[in-house]
Amino acid sequence: MDELLRRLGEVYDLERTAMLLAWDQEVCMSPAGATEHGELRATIERLAHERFVDDRVGELLGDARPRDDIHADTVRVALRDFEKARRVPSDLVAEMARAGAAARTAWMKARELNDFAVFAPALARNLELRRALSACFPEAEHPYDPLLDDYEPGLRTASAGAALERLRDGLVPLIAAAPEIDDSLLHRTYPQAGQRALVHTVLDALGVDDQAWRLDEAEHPFAAAVTVGDIRLTTRYHDDDLESLFSCIHEFGHGLYEQQVDPALARTPLGNGASSAWHESQSRLWENMVGRSPGFWRWCFPHAQAAFPERFGDRTWQEVQRAVNAVRPSLIRVSADEVTYGLHIVLRFELELALIEGALAVDDLPAAWNERTQAYLGLDVPDDCHGVLQDVHWSEGLFGYFPTYALGNIIAGQLWARIADDLPDIDERFAEGDFAPLRVWLAQHVHRHGRRLMGEDLLERVVGGPLDPTPYLGYLEGKLQASAQLMT
Amino acid sequence: MDELLRRLGEVYDLERTAMLLAWDQEVCMSPAGATEHGELRATIERLAHERFVDDRVGELLGDARPRDDIHADTVRVALRDFEKARRVPSDLVAEMARAGAAARTAWMKARELNDFAVFAPALARNLELRRALSACFPEAEHPYDPLLDDYEPGLRTASAGAALERLRDGLVPLIAAAPEIDDSLLHRTYPQAGQRALVHTVLDALGVDDQAWRLDEAEHPFAAAVTVGDIRLTTRYHDDDLESLFSCIHEFGHGLYEQQVDPALARTPLGNGASSAWHESQSRLWENMVGRSPGFWRWCFPHAQAAFPERFGDRTWQEVQRAVNAVRPSLIRVSADEVTYGLHIVLRFELELALIEGALAVDDLPAAWNERTQAYLGLDVPDDCHGVLQDVHWSEGLFGYFPTYALGNIIAGQLWARIADDLPDIDERFAEGDFAPLRVWLAQHVHRHGRRLMGEDLLERVVGGPLDPTPYLGYLEGKLQASAQLMT
Repeated sequence: MDELLRRLGEVYDLERTAMLLAWDQEVCMSPAGATEHGELRATIERLAHERFVDDRVGELLGDARPRDDIHADTVRVALRDFEKARRVPSDLVAEMARAGAAARTAWMKARELNDFAVFAPALARNLELRRALSACFPEAEHPYDPLLDDYEPGLRTASAGAALERLRDGLVPLIAAAPEIDDSLLHRTYPQAGQRALVHTVLDALGVDDQAWRLDEAEHPFAAAVTVGDIRLTTRYHDDDLESLFSCIHEFGHGLYEQQVDPALARTPLGNGASSAWHESQSRLWENMVGRSPGFWRWCFPHAQAAFPERFGDRTWQEVQRAVNAVRPSLIRVSADEVTYGLHIVLRFELELALIEGALAVDDLPAAWNERTQAYLGLDVPDDCHGVLQDVHWSEGLFGYFPTYALGNIIAGQLWARIADDLPDIDERFAEGDFAPLRVWLAQHVHRHGRRLMGEDLLERVVGGPLDPTPYLGYLEGKLQASAQLMT
Repeated sequence: MDELLRRLGEVYDLERTAMLLAWDQEVCMSPAGATEHGELRATIERLAHERFVDDRVGELLGDARPRDDIHADTVRVALRDFEKARRVPSDLVAEMARAGAAARTAWMKARELNDFAVFAPALARNLELRRALSACFPEAEHPYDPLLDDYEPGLRTASAGAALERLRDGLVPLIAAAPEIDDSLLHRTYPQAGQRALVHTVLDALGVDDQAWRLDEAEHPFAAAVTVGDIRLTTRYHDDDLESLFSCIHEFGHGLYEQQVDPALARTPLGNGASSAWHESQSRLWENMVGRSPGFWRWCFPHAQAAFPERFGDRTWQEVQRAVNAVRPSLIRVSADEVTYGLHIVLRFELELALIEGALAVDDLPAAWNERTQAYLGLDVPDDCHGVLQDVHWSEGLFGYFPTYALGNIIAGQLWARIADDLPDIDERFAEGDFAPLRVWLAQHVHRHGRRLMGEDLLERVVGGPLDPTPYLGYLEGKLQASAQLMT
């Protein structure tokens, strides 16, 4: 057991070092160092993989004698990861990496030319390799299962699909009936100095301190937990919106999850969040349930006024809170509002599932994309860049990842309903700038477990049931009703 | 050969990643992450060592068929490193690390109490382990040889000692006769904004651009070459001196060396500077030969005036250049001037040599220190913190490192004499803010070779002779004469 823990600790160190290199690449690296920096990261990632799938690790996992529950969970989770990793031939892993790099280049070229056809062959190759990966798991119920499992260990396509279908069927009428809200006040000039001041005030209040956190700028915001005591958020500042505020709150949710994992799980495979959807549930819960709530804005508004006197001086917190909750169908996922966002995801999930199943041909993808955009969002797609070419994911071979965004919202909705029961005065606490009760609740019910429970088991434990979009839809409906009332 | 190059490339990547972690620890790491960050670095350093001393590397080195001169040099240098590393039992390596950590703690405690006796037992243990290390190389002429060889591959104690003795005998009378210069103008308040502006102007002129370089703050300034295209300098800003300027020029010298190594040597054991003394020759050459020269100050002075109008508004460049060349014996090495610095180093070298030989007992070290400080610098040491306890090196087990500081100055003196022949108008070029000819000369004669030549062979090739302090002493003497003339 001790040798096993040492081995797994080494793999953990390599993985965290790879994360630091990824952070460094976006935040610190000099442009002229890009190629060699990529070599460092490739070497560290390769070693992390090699040292984990080593025969000796397999022997140690077979012979391990756990001395406590954490040991037992460590062996169980590591064995699952190990067996999955060993089933995929290293030639296939290498070929997927090569094809992904080529497809990424093809995707960028296709975007320049605004022409899906330029990307189609590379996408077809990515799909072919993912089907080969899937074929390494012949016992799978569905060829999409092994792909989804990389992000949501244990979750089946059937369960995810059923939940997402119900989400879709709830969202479409909700959006059709959503009140038209004037949010033009959010699309004015917001000086960056004010944005920085506001972001710092908000993060301080949420629970960020300079002993364990830092905030930097990056082209695409992300959070990196280099270690439990070293959480690094990034954001970006645009002159003409408040994206920096919401992206910081979002990334804070990811960072807090990693920070509040039980320290006893550090340097084991248990010392991370449970899954991608669980991670997204945390970032979305903070960004949306907290950051767009009445209580939050009652507290935040004077700070926002101080940061942007020329914007908010003669406004009320109610006006701003209503504006940040405006619903308006749009073509681009990353700038979609909270409510329509889910439909962007369901659309992608349905299409990638059909591609993997072979029910949809690559050449027919743009037409299918445009058709569903009309059906779900009521919008015409003018060209490929505003449609099927907008996301980088498929070019990198990420199939099975998109659904986790929407599953995260569903989980967040289920948690939020539980939180409303356990902490009935939570909105009042937010209005006082007190976010500690929520942090503590999340640590206790979700964060501390790390990967000790599989996603579905964790959900059963926290909310007493399976994936269910009803609470999330109810939360959105309540919000839309409140917005409509405020307008009258 | 190809497998060997892949293996060595992996070791190189691990070593550079360890350097990035070291940089990150000083510049970016959150305090609460210190312990786990240390684990990451220890794992990467251990893997770099293990992957290099692996049996397979030995086989590959034995069977390698070099296809060109770079391959041949790679095999030769890697084989030397490999055989040296394999001679030291891993138990001894681990024990040295443990004893070093304990001694570092004891040293800090001793400094708090200002009492060498608290540190003495830990120092004795460090010495005992270094003698054990030395005993792994029974063919060595002198027990200090294997220690010195870690920093100066191939250099013998006898050669280093002879050069340092001649340096000492030249410096003592030079310092006794040095003119008294009023440099009080350097010990006033220098606003940090002005320091930052000046540092950036100077580094830009020296050759720093934002494609390949960055500058951050750290408690103890250092340079890290994460990759050839990613050179990271650090400095610190004090309100009451201009240390930031000279430390930046110093670290630039280290960084430029790494940047100008032949790119064809990247990811091999040849892709670094030749030795510690060679590295120090570069940093000292830029800091002192360039940064304290008349030409540099003719160019820099208007920029310094702009940065500090209240300090330099009614001064001349001659006054400032004279002040930055003031000579005054003092007790603390790190704040010593250019001329007396060498004696601080010779003193340490002589004492650590006597400790390793067993000619000096640990308990007698403070008395020996104080006696030599009086003999070389004419100063009484009031207490251990101002004497034998001032440096961290011996607590970390660094024996063989101190002499490289002074050897670096000697080499810089030899290079400078050659440069004066090859670039007779160099001071005029500096006066125009043109440092390119010096950069190019150093790249051509020194930097590009990386580790392809051993230190002494490189010196023979560049200056046509062995280590010789005469040019350095001549350079200092010329400077002191110029200072004395300026005063009259």
